[in-house]
Amino acid sequence: MTPSLESDANTMLIGVVGGGQLGRMIALAGIPLGYRFRFLDPSTDCPAAAVGEVLCGAYDDEVALGRLTEGAMAATYEFENVPARAARYLDRHTRLAPPAHSLAVAQDRIAEKDFFRECGVPVQKYRAVGTEEELDAAIRDVGVPGVLKTRRLGYDGKGQVVIREGSSAAAAWASLAHVPCIYEAFVPFEREVSIVATRGRGGSFVAHPLIRNVHREGILRVSIAPDPDANHALRRAAEGYVRAIAEQLNHVGTLAVEFFVTREGLVANEMAPRVHNSGHWTIEGAVTSQFENHVRAVAGLPLGSADVRGAAAMVNLIGTVPDVHELLDVPGAHVHLYGKEPKPGRKLGHVTVVARDHDELMPCVERLRELAGEVVQPATASELG
Amino acid sequence: MTPSLESDANTMLIGVVGGGQLGRMIALAGIPLGYRFRFLDPSTDCPAAAVGEVLCGAYDDEVALGRLTEGAMAATYEFENVPARAARYLDRHTRLAPPAHSLAVAQDRIAEKDFFRECGVPVQKYRAVGTEEELDAAIRDVGVPGVLKTRRLGYDGKGQVVIREGSSAAAAWASLAHVPCIYEAFVPFEREVSIVATRGRGGSFVAHPLIRNVHREGILRVSIAPDPDANHALRRAAEGYVRAIAEQLNHVGTLAVEFFVTREGLVANEMAPRVHNSGHWTIEGAVTSQFENHVRAVAGLPLGSADVRGAAAMVNLIGTVPDVHELLDVPGAHVHLYGKEPKPGRKLGHVTVVARDHDELMPCVERLRELAGEVVQPATASELG
Repeated sequence: MTPSLESDANTMLIGVVGGGQLGRMIALAGIPLGYRFRFLDPSTDCPAAAVGEVLCGAYDDEVALGRLTEGAMAATYEFENVPARAARYLDRHTRLAPPAHSLAVAQDRIAEKDFFRECGVPVQKYRAVGTEEELDAAIRDVGVPGVLKTRRLGYDGKGQVVIREGSSAAAAWASLAHVPCIYEAFVPFEREVSIVATRGRGGSFVAHPLIRNVHREGILRVSIAPDPDANHALRRAAEGYVRAIAEQLNHVGTLAVEFFVTREGLVANEMAPRVHNSGHWTIEGAVTSQFENHVRAVAGLPLGSADVRGAAAMVNLIGTVPDVHELLDVPGAHVHLYGKEPKPGRKLGHVTVVARDHDELMPCVERLRELAGEVVQPATASELG
Repeated sequence: MTPSLESDANTMLIGVVGGGQLGRMIALAGIPLGYRFRFLDPSTDCPAAAVGEVLCGAYDDEVALGRLTEGAMAATYEFENVPARAARYLDRHTRLAPPAHSLAVAQDRIAEKDFFRECGVPVQKYRAVGTEEELDAAIRDVGVPGVLKTRRLGYDGKGQVVIREGSSAAAAWASLAHVPCIYEAFVPFEREVSIVATRGRGGSFVAHPLIRNVHREGILRVSIAPDPDANHALRRAAEGYVRAIAEQLNHVGTLAVEFFVTREGLVANEMAPRVHNSGHWTIEGAVTSQFENHVRAVAGLPLGSADVRGAAAMVNLIGTVPDVHELLDVPGAHVHLYGKEPKPGRKLGHVTVVARDHDELMPCVERLRELAGEVVQPATASELG
C-alpha cells in the first residue's frame, strides 16, 4: 500500500538511502518543513546521524529497507549507486523519488550517454568496451587522447584512466580490472559547468543558474554561480538540455548535469539523479536551495524559486578542515562541516560565500581557496589529465 | 573546570536550556558549523528533539543540568525565564552565554527599565507596585491610561492588564494575584519596531536592520525588515541603544530590544537576551541569521554580516497551520513548522518571504496574512488595548 502524501503527523517521515553529507543537508532543509528523516547507512555515526534516526545496514538488506519505509510517506536517496534491487523494493513499498529509472540511467555510463543522445543532448564520441580487443577497436574509432572509465560505480575521478598517443591499451584495460567500460573521446574543453534543477511531482521544473566548476584530481574544488563567462544562449541551451533529461526520465526531485564548454558548444559529461556538490552554494546563494526543493519535490509540495541571490560560490574542504575562525573572517562566508574524520581526498565540508556581484565575490573566493589549500590559478584544459 | 573553545570533536557539544522552536532553530543553524546539541526540556517530544539529544527534566534540576553540561564546550538558553539557580550552576560548570546578568535584567521588568535608563535608553514613566496602595500612588504619578504588568514571567501579552480612566485599581491588582508588578504609562505609539543584534565573545557587534512588528492580542503576528517607514536617524538611534545595552551587559550571543515609535522618538519596551521571534525572517532574509550568529557568538567564532538581502518578512502561524501547498505557492515563501500540536494561541510555525524590494514583498505578505487567518488592515495604536 502506498502511503498518501497528506500532511499527517504520522506520515511526515521520509526515508533516505545513505546517511552522508547529502542526506544530512537534505534533512537540515526538510526539518523546517515539518518532516522527520530516517536514514539507511552502513555506519551509525554517519553525517546524517545529527539530524535523524540511522538504521545501520547494507543498502540491499530487505529487512533494513522494510524498517526504512515503515510509516514513511516517501523514500529518496543521496547517491546514485543504490542497488537496483533496493530501488525496486522501495518502488513497491513507498513512493520512491527520484524514480528507479533515473537511477538505472545514471548507474551505467553507456546507458547515460545513449540516453543523452535520445534527449538531443550533445555528447562526445564513445564506445562500450567489454574486452581488450574492443578497447583497441574503440581507440581506433574514437581516437586519442581519450578516457577509459568503468561503466559503473565510478566517482570523484576514481575508476578512470587517460589513454594518450603511445599509451598501452592493455595496461589501461588491466588497471581497471577488466570490468565493463566506456571509452570516451577526450574533450578539449574551455571550462566545466553544471546545471542543478528540480522537477516536481506534477511536472513543475525549476533550474538554478549555470554553475562554473573547477575540478582537480577528479574532485570538485570550486563552484561559482552564476558562471560569469556564460552568455544568455549558453545558459538557455544548458537549461533546455537538463529540462529535456528531467522530463524524459519523468524525474521527481533534484538532478544535476555536468557539461564541458567547448568551442563548438556544450558537451554533456554526466548526470547525477540527486542533489549535487556543485549546488551546495544554493543553501545561502539561492532563493530556495537544491536541498529544500528536493524535499519539496519528494513530498509533493510546490517548488521554490531557484534564482541566485547576487553572486555565490562554494569552496570544498578536502582532506583537512582549515581554521574555522579564518574561514569565517572572509566576508559573506558560511562554513558547512559534515562531522567526518579527516582523511586525504575526503570531502569534509564546504564554505559558501555570497556577495552582491561577481566583482565583490571573487576576492573572497580566492581567499577561501588559499585557506582551503587550493592553488589559485586560472583553470586550464590540462586539469583533466 | 571550564572547557576550552578549541575546535575539538570532543568539545563540539553545546547544551541548551529549553527545547522549543528557538532551540530547534539554533541547532539547525549550528549543526552545519559542526556542533552537536543537547537540550534540557520538561518534554521529550519537544520541537528540538528532531535535532539533538533531549534530557527530560525541570530547568532547575541540578542532576539534569550536570548531564546537560557534561562534555559541553558551552551552554546557552532559548528563553529568558531560566531559574537564577540554574544560571548560576551553568555559569560555574561551563561557559554560559548569554551571561547570567543578561538573564537577571530581563527577568524583572523594574530591573530592565532601570537598566535601560542607566544605558541612556528612553523609557516611559513607570513605578514598582507591591501593594494596592502603591498601585493607587503609581496611577496618580504616572497617570492613565497605563498598563499593570507582573514584574516577572510575563510573555506574549500574558500577565498584564490595561488601566483606563475609571478602571478599578483594586480589580486590576487582584486580577494579577497580588504579585509584584510594574505600572507603566501607556505609550501612544505610531508603530512597534525591534532590533535583533549579536555580540561576540571579543566584543564584536552586528545588528540586523530595524524591524517593523505587528502584534495582536499581545502576540507577534508579522515582522517586516527593514522597517519601510524608518529613516536613517531612527535606525541609527535604535542600533545605538541596542549596542549600549549589549555592551553594558557584557552580553555574548543574540539579543532583541523592542521599541515603540512615538512622535517624540523611540521608547524601549522590553528586551529578550536571546534569539527572538521578530528575527525569524533572518534565516532566509539576512546574510547571516540570528541563529547562526548566536551559535557563532556562543562558540567564540567571528560573527557574520547581519545585513538584510533585499526585503523580507515573517508571518507567524498561530493556533492552526494553513495548507502548506497554498503557503508555498506564494513567491519567495519558506515554511518553518515547529512540530507542535495545534492549540489556540500557540506558535506552531512561521513563514518567511523574501523579495527584491518592499514593493515586491508586500503583496506576498498580505497573501500570507490572509492564509494565516490574519485580518489585513493597517496597524493602529488601539491594538495595544
